[in-house]
Amino acid sequence: MRTYIDCISCFLKQAQSAVTIAVDDPSRREQVMGEVLEDVSRMNFDRSTVEIGAEIHRTLREASGNPDPYREIKDRSNRRMLALYPHFSQQIQSAEDPLEMAVRMAIAANIIDFGAIQNLDEETIDNVMSEASAIPLDRAAVEQLRREVERAETILYLGDNAGEIVCDRLLIEQLPREKITFVVRGNPVLNDVTMVDAEAVGMTKIVPVIDNGFDAPGTVLEFCSPEFRDRFQAADLIIAKGQGNYESLSDNQQNIFFLLKAKCPVIAKEFNSSVGVQILQKVRH
Amino acid sequence: MRTYIDCISCFLKQAQSAVTIAVDDPSRREQVMGEVLEDVSRMNFDRSTVEIGAEIHRTLREASGNPDPYREIKDRSNRRMLALYPHFSQQIQSAEDPLEMAVRMAIAANIIDFGAIQNLDEETIDNVMSEASAIPLDRAAVEQLRREVERAETILYLGDNAGEIVCDRLLIEQLPREKITFVVRGNPVLNDVTMVDAEAVGMTKIVPVIDNGFDAPGTVLEFCSPEFRDRFQAADLIIAKGQGNYESLSDNQQNIFFLLKAKCPVIAKEFNSSVGVQILQKVRH
Repeated sequence: MRTYIDCISCFLKQAQSAVTIAVDDPSRREQVMGEVLEDVSRMNFDRSTVEIGAEIHRTLREASGNPDPYREIKDRSNRRMLALYPHFSQQIQSAEDPLEMAVRMAIAANIIDFGAIQNLDEETIDNVMSEASAIPLDRAAVEQLRREVERAETILYLGDNAGEIVCDRLLIEQLPREKITFVVRGNPVLNDVTMVDAEAVGMTKIVPVIDNGFDAPGTVLEFCSPEFRDRFQAADLIIAKGQGNYESLSDNQQNIFFLLKAKCPVIAKEFNSSVGVQILQKVRH
Repeated sequence: MRTYIDCISCFLKQAQSAVTIAVDDPSRREQVMGEVLEDVSRMNFDRSTVEIGAEIHRTLREASGNPDPYREIKDRSNRRMLALYPHFSQQIQSAEDPLEMAVRMAIAANIIDFGAIQNLDEETIDNVMSEASAIPLDRAAVEQLRREVERAETILYLGDNAGEIVCDRLLIEQLPREKITFVVRGNPVLNDVTMVDAEAVGMTKIVPVIDNGFDAPGTVLEFCSPEFRDRFQAADLIIAKGQGNYESLSDNQQNIFFLLKAKCPVIAKEFNSSVGVQILQKVRH
């Protein structure tokens, strides 16, 4: 998916939030924002938002000297969601259709995204999670996912954000684990999952976890490691979580199911949907 | 008031909205946004938001070849508010304290601001206006304004936006008109009032109207015309409408009453207030 002019103010809002987290000195923050603006002014709209986002956050990390500004926030999100794990697990097991409920929760947890939404408080997370079961979801898509999971021999599950990864684990526990490999980003970017998070929430104990070799808040294949690209091409089915993975893989021809919450009007429009809606969809080419 | 990093994404949101109005061709829109970004990347945070806003909108007008992109929106706002004029006038005349009610309506109408709020629909305007009488307002400040208006011999009333200007007229009708000169911007910028709007809503029929000689969405004295600066220095009292006038005059030592709605967290913080609150305040130095 290409970038639209609507995305620019969002990039800058994200950068402002990140620089406030990463840099203490207010005048240094202004310098860093100037560098980010220069980056953005040179951007090519034909590139995906995720590529541009990667560049912005790289500039921020370099300029701030902080290689992982969101580490503390990621730890807090993971702890918060791990504390709710038994409750969520119970909710899934007692559901009429546990797989569907796990899909719902995995998508609902996609709200934990500091790229699209700043100042996400814990109450919001709790509300969204408790509403997960009530919100509309395409049941036919759930059935299609069930069939494709059954048919597939190898499944790649592309993670998205910290915190949210706890619900990815819950969904994976409802799937044939032996087929699945979980994928994290190759380097810290925003509050996206890296190997640290996969270990923190016990993902590494239930399935193999690999990283994609790149620091974008999505999956920009041409910059990912050759090892990851081979695994991606060879997979029978790919489950891709979140807007970032959608934005970077929407034009890809592989067999991909996207699970996300539409967090901005541009994405909502792509799905003929509205902001805030839960989306489970295989994009047809 | 200086600029904060929080203002950057707002500038870009404003620019995106303006370029969508001013330019039809999507790829040309992207080019123009690139030029705006270059402008913004060179900005100096010590300058006021209004100076930077002026530069952005100048770039937009030049790049789009459209000298007044908001003309149609301004005409629509004026017509909409003029149609409500008899209703508002009745509401003021039947109020226990007509001056206070006129102040309330003049501030409530400050919501008609396409800089801070895009896609403002007519229903929103109607709701805000009908709530004007119920919203908290500092009564002591109203009394102080009443006294200072009485004491003053010359009053400058600095206008802000089209549409809103109808309520400025309603407030001026509650004041000693012979003391008042109304001020519009020197050139079109955003949906700010120019002489065209003052004529369209009949302001020119009730008080003298002058322009400030500059195209900022506020009052940047150093760039205003010498004639306006003289009038400004000589005035006993200045009534300044809207965020733009506040942002550009908050450090000025003249006798200024600011009437505005706080439309962003940065401004709300300046007044120890919250977003959406009606503000009538004389800034003490």
